[in-house]
Amino acid sequence: MNREGKIGIGLLGLGVVGSRVASVLTERAERLAGQVGLPLTLRGILVKDLSKTRDGSFPSGLLTTDPQALLSNPDVDIIVELIGGEQPALDFLRAAIGNGKHVVTANKQVMAVHGPGIIRLAEDKMVNLLYEASVGGGIPIIGPLHKDLLANDLTSLHAIINGTTNYILTRMSTEGLDFDSALRAAQALGYAESDPADDIEGTDAAYKLAILATLSFHTQVVASDVYREGISRVAARDFQYAGELGYTIKLLGIARRSSEGLSLRVHPVLIPQDHLLAKVDGAFNAIEIEGDLVGRVVFHGQGAGPKPTSSAVIGDILDVARGIASGMKPVRHRVLDNGLKLLPLEELVTQFYIRMTVADRPRVLAQITAILGDLDISIASVIQKSTDASNKTAEIVVMTHPSKEAQMHQAIQQLEALDAVAEISNTIRVEQWA
Amino acid sequence: MNREGKIGIGLLGLGVVGSRVASVLTERAERLAGQVGLPLTLRGILVKDLSKTRDGSFPSGLLTTDPQALLSNPDVDIIVELIGGEQPALDFLRAAIGNGKHVVTANKQVMAVHGPGIIRLAEDKMVNLLYEASVGGGIPIIGPLHKDLLANDLTSLHAIINGTTNYILTRMSTEGLDFDSALRAAQALGYAESDPADDIEGTDAAYKLAILATLSFHTQVVASDVYREGISRVAARDFQYAGELGYTIKLLGIARRSSEGLSLRVHPVLIPQDHLLAKVDGAFNAIEIEGDLVGRVVFHGQGAGPKPTSSAVIGDILDVARGIASGMKPVRHRVLDNGLKLLPLEELVTQFYIRMTVADRPRVLAQITAILGDLDISIASVIQKSTDASNKTAEIVVMTHPSKEAQMHQAIQQLEALDAVAEISNTIRVEQWA
Repeated sequence: MNREGKIGIGLLGLGVVGSRVASVLTERAERLAGQVGLPLTLRGILVKDLSKTRDGSFPSGLLTTDPQALLSNPDVDIIVELIGGEQPALDFLRAAIGNGKHVVTANKQVMAVHGPGIIRLAEDKMVNLLYEASVGGGIPIIGPLHKDLLANDLTSLHAIINGTTNYILTRMSTEGLDFDSALRAAQALGYAESDPADDIEGTDAAYKLAILATLSFHTQVVASDVYREGISRVAARDFQYAGELGYTIKLLGIARRSSEGLSLRVHPVLIPQDHLLAKVDGAFNAIEIEGDLVGRVVFHGQGAGPKPTSSAVIGDILDVARGIASGMKPVRHRVLDNGLKLLPLEELVTQFYIRMTVADRPRVLAQITAILGDLDISIASVIQKSTDASNKTAEIVVMTHPSKEAQMHQAIQQLEALDAVAEISNTIRVEQWA
Repeated sequence: MNREGKIGIGLLGLGVVGSRVASVLTERAERLAGQVGLPLTLRGILVKDLSKTRDGSFPSGLLTTDPQALLSNPDVDIIVELIGGEQPALDFLRAAIGNGKHVVTANKQVMAVHGPGIIRLAEDKMVNLLYEASVGGGIPIIGPLHKDLLANDLTSLHAIINGTTNYILTRMSTEGLDFDSALRAAQALGYAESDPADDIEGTDAAYKLAILATLSFHTQVVASDVYREGISRVAARDFQYAGELGYTIKLLGIARRSSEGLSLRVHPVLIPQDHLLAKVDGAFNAIEIEGDLVGRVVFHGQGAGPKPTSSAVIGDILDVARGIASGMKPVRHRVLDNGLKLLPLEELVTQFYIRMTVADRPRVLAQITAILGDLDISIASVIQKSTDASNKTAEIVVMTHPSKEAQMHQAIQQLEALDAVAEISNTIRVEQWA
């Protein structure tokens, strides 16, 4: 609280989200003051270029190009970082925390790569660090993990946390589009960027999974700890075959805790059609948390966009502001004390869907099953899907029982070496819920 | 915080939820202390009968039959009320708040009937009053409404908040069971009580809707403000016809805010099959909130049971405890300042599904459409569903366009008075999302 009895806010960045946040803080000032118990006041907004025209119902005199005017301003209680990207956002956040400011950020990259370090820094400085908007847009998920679900020992997390890929996979699933057409459709509608690599390769989802896993399992996870595989290999016919087997295909972020440790991965997954996550369509996000007390809880909503993101940012601002208004001195919580072992992918045990093109002649299947059997991979089903008489090949789909990832890699290599196997077209992991 | 630097908890009630809460507080004491910043200690547990045998890993010396031993105990900081029902729970809560204790309750009846009064009392006494477990079991919903979504002006709330009725309707929908068979199945599995009235008549859902609406719209709502209609008239063939039209049937609690005010109702509703709430099966609960910033957010999970409920109760305890540990002095928030007008059902504008049995002869349809037309009710579709040659009757289903509730009541009366109409078998409102 500053000298006038108001809670001062310094906003870094004035893009679409920043403008919306500034406008809502200005337009709803009276109502928000009532809900906090003290008025909030926007002390300044850091921009790169003062001459740019801006929309938004807030005084233009607030704009500044000098970060220190906010980061070192004694009248600023809360720094709200909406610049995005690693630098200079990271330095600004560190400086703000170092100066004893509470911080609210929407920055998934900073939180996913430097999260554990910043969380510890904020703990040391006894300031609040809130980042609800970094995952799932406006969906309340960081808050519930941080508070409502805290009594639980969490066991797993399954999340659709990238709207672009979910939109593409939905179009492929419902309309039979191939990947390239669905990607172009997503780009035409603004759901995918012209360089879509971060989304379709799973990088964005891996960022968000790292953030959620750190909080869910009270352990240090950064993005590079997450195994990552994108969706570009998923083909229209994988949806067709998956559908025949009762599955659909989603890009999931998955974290599972076992007695051995924590496994973390982002990749396409076959999931049962009747699971709620299979019904999350288009650009929506959904996060399923499993806890030993609460069971499975799913949070669903728009995972991006200026309005949903501003909902999360302002929710965080109000939470910090209420703490300030009530004279709260943050105490040191042990947030990251679990020190769980992060399991390498090789130790994962999972079912696999394998689609391959093989020579259409006797004894091929016997060769395939022999290779899998020698590696302790048992087969749940084999379906011959289609035969191409012109080049005497057939497409077959093998579903395995749960098998070790390391064994599966060996099997794929040995299968590819078989004369009778023309191509391993795709392998996709299968996720089952008990 | 009490004299030993510990946060003292007094537990009222030791049923299945209370036992679970006491056990978790005892077994996870060390971890929870780390997360709060101070140790929590169970000071006593109020029971009716000391001689009853109990399960649970907590010291039996904690049991007492004297409420004042907890309500007036200076070493008790938080009273956790898990007795349920209106009295003596209400008196205990008032006494605890009057003595400056923070309170956590799972009591939907008290919160739905006396919520606004108790909320004001807690505000006056500057203590926390948390009640996450009163709605939706362990699903975080009160917390997100109270905090994460606070920036929003909420516009609507659609909720499946009674697991018993959702289980019955799911069995009717998926297996074609009639209501009585589905109810008996639910009773056999323990999903419905031997006297199921509170559930199937919508009373329980109305309680929960009142609690959610008070918080969502910052206005005073009690259970008697909620229009209520149960599910016992829903027939197997309503599911069949609804399905043909692309709908399913759910018991929803609905709150909608318009420029005129707030409408509140619990009744069976036809909802589009592709809406996420249509996919909430069995005893699960789901709550959809629509806000002007966040858009639509859905929270899904187990709506009842000792473990999920204890997750919510302990989450609340930890939230209060963190506040105490950080020296927070609750400030007076204006929670109930909106004073929205509560709209009578007659002003509702909604689509209707009408199933009726009529004489199978010419000009009957003309009579029906004339009555509806005279009352400004326009028809979206009429389908003749089946003809019974033996008594020369036919079953028809009429779907109307959005029409005024008052007009519809008149129309039903006039239709029933027609010679050609043997029976209005059912009328069910239809909910559309833009």
